[in-house]
Amino acid sequence: MPFVHIFHGRDFNQERIEHLGDSVHRALMEAFDVPPDDMFQAFSVHTAGSQLRVTPAFLGIRHSADAVFVQITCAPGRTDERRRTLLAAIVAHAHAMADVNPEDVIINLVESSRENWSFGNDLAQLAA
Amino acid sequence: MPFVHIFHGRDFNQERIEHLGDSVHRALMEAFDVPPDDMFQAFSVHTAGSQLRVTPAFLGIRHSADAVFVQITCAPGRTDERRRTLLAAIVAHAHAMADVNPEDVIINLVESSRENWSFGNDLAQLAA
Amino acid sequence: MPFVHIFHGRDFNQERIEHLGDSVHRALMEAFDVPPDDMFQAFSVHTAGSQLRVTPAFLGIRHSADAVFVQITCAPGRTDERRRTLLAAIVAHAHAMADVNPEDVIINLVESSRENWSFGNDLAQLAA
Repeated sequence: MPFVHIFHGRDFNQERIEHLGDSVHRALMEAFDVPPDDMFQAFSVHTAGSQLRVTPAFLGIRHSADAVFVQITCAPGRTDERRRTLLAAIVAHAHAMADVNPEDVIINLVESSRENWSFGNDLAQLAA
Repeated sequence: MPFVHIFHGRDFNQERIEHLGDSVHRALMEAFDVPPDDMFQAFSVHTAGSQLRVTPAFLGIRHSADAVFVQITCAPGRTDERRRTLLAAIVAHAHAMADVNPEDVIINLVESSRENWSFGNDLAQLAA
Repeated sequence: MPFVHIFHGRDFNQERIEHLGDSVHRALMEAFDVPPDDMFQAFSVHTAGSQLRVTPAFLGIRHSADAVFVQITCAPGRTDERRRTLLAAIVAHAHAMADVNPEDVIINLVESSRENWSFGNDLAQLAA
């Protein structure tokens, strides 16, 4: 159900993009119990046709040209603790699997209720 | 008012993209009473500069390389029934008008209150 | 904290894109007290690889090929008055700094709670 939109810089080749996507998906499986086959991801690269502007430093955290922005639209209702677990898991896995510095992983969740999703065919499959 | 962001694959030419956009807009007019001239759409194609990763199958629904992801930011407050009507209309119209298989139409609504929109000039035009 | 995603047309060169980004950031600083170094922006240009479709006119407001769509994901809880101030400031600054007609500035805020953000390293920095 979560929809993951990752904005990344020019230095991500295809393999690294996939590792980055895998790291976010693994974190969602671990922290939010997202099923393995529930993967919907889009990637937007910093090219002539788009760009990222990230502050060099905010809250004492430095960001390099390698910074990635991970925006995840997901169902609401997870506890603060589970959300923190997700954030930590994304940062850890992106570091281990896609070689992105922990400082460079910027994350934002947008919550959208279960009635607001359809995965094709039968509709609003996850509505109560 | 709704903002429609459609992520699609490489095999969509300009005409098919427009038909896909038209199909979503027609569904919004029918199900949400969106005025015909209230159309704001962005399209992101699967090129060297961006990509989509969609699970091959989830909830028993198969997704092909033709899968599209339709994210619609809109006002809150529509009933569940109207939202289901919208989802069904998008799937039906995308099939009839843009030749996208029903299984390949993935939809997510993100709700944002009427105070959160401006259409230029005078501001927050739809706020109460 | 706000994440700004700007969709713009083909006629924006690098300098104008930066001025447009600066104008939105300045409005956020003025109206929402966003710190100067809290800047996270992505730009998607209208190229062969993506496109915008904007109604020629809605609510009596005309939109040209120069229309920009500014989607800002931010924390909830600002008063209606502050949100109107933000919208007005974006329109004014985009006109003065990036030469975008007031009619062509379309804005949408998406609110996401403070627990839903991480800026790298330590997590959910702005959670209560």
